[in-house]
Amino acid sequence: MASKSKILVIGATGYIGKHIALASAREGHSTFALVRAAAAADQPLAKAKLLQDFQAAGVTLLDGDLYDRASLVSAIKQVDVVISAVGQSQLKDQTKIIDAIKDSGAHIKRFLPSEFTLDVDRSNAVEPAKSAFALKVQIRRAVEASGIPYTYVSSNGFAGQWLPTLGQAGVTGLPTDKVVILGDGNVKVVFVDEDDIGTYTVKAVDDPRTLNKVLYLRPPNNILSHNELVSVWEKKVGKTFERVYVSEEEALKKIQESSDPLNLIYAILHSVSIKGDETNFEIEPSFGVEASELYPDVKYTSVDEYLNRFL
Amino acid sequence: MASKSKILVIGATGYIGKHIALASAREGHSTFALVRAAAAADQPLAKAKLLQDFQAAGVTLLDGDLYDRASLVSAIKQVDVVISAVGQSQLKDQTKIIDAIKDSGAHIKRFLPSEFTLDVDRSNAVEPAKSAFALKVQIRRAVEASGIPYTYVSSNGFAGQWLPTLGQAGVTGLPTDKVVILGDGNVKVVFVDEDDIGTYTVKAVDDPRTLNKVLYLRPPNNILSHNELVSVWEKKVGKTFERVYVSEEEALKKIQESSDPLNLIYAILHSVSIKGDETNFEIEPSFGVEASELYPDVKYTSVDEYLNRFL
Repeated sequence: MASKSKILVIGATGYIGKHIALASAREGHSTFALVRAAAAADQPLAKAKLLQDFQAAGVTLLDGDLYDRASLVSAIKQVDVVISAVGQSQLKDQTKIIDAIKDSGAHIKRFLPSEFTLDVDRSNAVEPAKSAFALKVQIRRAVEASGIPYTYVSSNGFAGQWLPTLGQAGVTGLPTDKVVILGDGNVKVVFVDEDDIGTYTVKAVDDPRTLNKVLYLRPPNNILSHNELVSVWEKKVGKTFERVYVSEEEALKKIQESSDPLNLIYAILHSVSIKGDETNFEIEPSFGVEASELYPDVKYTSVDEYLNRFL
Repeated sequence: MASKSKILVIGATGYIGKHIALASAREGHSTFALVRAAAAADQPLAKAKLLQDFQAAGVTLLDGDLYDRASLVSAIKQVDVVISAVGQSQLKDQTKIIDAIKDSGAHIKRFLPSEFTLDVDRSNAVEPAKSAFALKVQIRRAVEASGIPYTYVSSNGFAGQWLPTLGQAGVTGLPTDKVVILGDGNVKVVFVDEDDIGTYTVKAVDDPRTLNKVLYLRPPNNILSHNELVSVWEKKVGKTFERVYVSEEEALKKIQESSDPLNLIYAILHSVSIKGDETNFEIEPSFGVEASELYPDVKYTSVDEYLNRFL
């Protein structure tokens, strides 16, 4: 770890990409973000904030995208590490990144394809989530076949997505009287602050311990069952909520009866909240490492602290 | 206006598209939304809320997108009116919608291409905003050449984008001591609540007065100069702010010196806030109509009311 690698983030204006790009700059890496200029014309004021944050942090903006090969190759040639944070609809097109890395002649020391969910090789998801996760599996296999050094970041749940509704889907805010819980509510789920996902991701890029491994984010204070999560919140607000449980049978029925794309969402929730796919296996040294163990110096935001923001 | 047209919204999960789809259902139209199923896998909980809102409102979700021709043609065949709310990076691909309308054999009574900004045929934008707006101009010409009946919705400024920062770019919230104002701050700008944009847009689709015309949104209580906007807020909070003016010369220099895509954002702001492109021309009956005049029954949210949300 003599010097810090130069990092290119693809998908840097996306939900998790922005946290990664800012973490990269914060951690002292020369950071480049491949950004489609046209996209800035939608919601210019919101985009101005983000892009000015990037500039203030020292992130270099490069005009281009996945589908502009020249821009992609040129960006890759400037860096040592490529992190992809593209969304679901661009997952399969990450083969363009693999091809560009190979053809560029650049010596890319690490490629992190877009993951940032549970471990897609170890999920018990039913359809249509199974096929959605399979796109990430296919990219894993393509990365491995390419010989490019890699790390897969299994970040598990985004705190910013789960905690504002206390883990409930289809509602806007915190519970007032009832809490809907998938399954028996005893399955352990992981909630990680998006800034911490960025930090752990960036810590991994120059670390030989994460080479060709899955980096799991399971900070001990952030692994809670849905029942535990509700109890933590109940204690904070001094109030109890009626817990309405949805059985696996009901959940599966809902998946089957729902049309695209709601069935996909319900199937993802089934995998996380009923099958426990974020936590139902041990991390073996042969395939993975855990982030909070590797980087004990990272002062991650605990679920307890995160929930205090809503008081 | 015997019966209400069936409406297809393309880009319905986008920033303005969701307001249009919900307004369409609220106004009693059979409403269809073409949604890419895969996109639901990103941020499933947030998407679940929106899609469940669609379902609760009676919006029929159709799996597909602009790039899946069969899905597009099949969706078009089910409706009378097509509203596109796609983002900047898909603007040019709206030719696929035009082609699909022509080839489907469907009798589409009205097509509303994605506009929802100032009138792109009447802007004084400098580069690179000029070229960005030109994509909408090109689609206008393609629509006119196709003979498909149309309406262009010049919605002007999104209140939800401009008002939370009191019109300032690159900041997160309301001013605490200073307010940065582009130009002399006396140019009139229009701020329209996104729900109202949805309502006015949908009102227009079955209205012969908007046929082959531009529908301008200029609700009288929502046309303010930046100086007036700041004064309204100052009065509400009982405090005055230091007004920092950025001259046109400085703004143009900033556009020239900024890299992609910040230069685009600054050039859009220059067009709106310095050139006054939302308000610097009269609406002539030959090409346009004004929404609040056509639909005086719509109780639109005034800027004054909107700002009260921040108190």
